[in-house]
Amino acid sequence: WLYMTPFIGGIGYVGFLTYRLLRPSQICNPSVNKASKKVVDIIDIEDMTSDKVSYCRCWRSKKFPLCDGSHNKHNEDTGDNAGPLVIKKNS
Amino acid sequence: WLYMTPFIGGIGYVGFLTYRLLRPSQICNPSVNKASKKVVDIIDIEDMTSDKVSYCRCWRSKKFPLCDGSHNKHNEDTGDNAGPLVIKKNS
Ligand code: FES
Ligand code: FES
Repeated sequence: WLYMTPFIGGIGYVGFLTYRLLRPSQICNPSVNKASKKVVDIIDIEDMTSDKVSYCRCWRSKKFPLCDGSHNKHNEDTGDNAGPLVIKKNS
Repeated sequence: WLYMTPFIGGIGYVGFLTYRLLRPSQICNPSVNKASKKVVDIIDIEDMTSDKVSYCRCWRSKKFPLCDGSHNKHNEDTGDNAGPLVIKKNS
């Protein structure tokens, strides 16, 4: 029966890939500050340089934690619908 | 050669799964407001009820756009390191 081994291995591998693919939870953040255990950014309103600032929630921005519009490419590439958090202050 | 068809189909399917698994870009947002083309939340500083408010960037919060701590479970489940954006104002 040993000739079955690669076959069983193959089935197992497909099962593993299917599990990884279908499990509901995927990582959000593939690249931002991965050395950190948890990426938390604390923004002081006083430090906001403009009356309206967009903050990234797609984790693809090159200016993270600011949004640089990369969510559009991310949404196109993956079919996602992520977008920024916009903070407005009245001066 | 027709007997090869299921075999070739199987290879193709594994290739597809592998591609889906390994491609770098995964969706961030599995469940928040999926009817919307792009989820953008606009927060007026004046409407902040507290001097320090955490906003969700892991897309798992039940109080989205607010953070409810669900990032901790998300990080444990997936090995991610997502965390909230914290907005502070001095009153
Ligand atoms: S670049 Fe990430 S939300 Fe805009
Ligand atoms: S619940 Fe999503 S960042 Fe905290």
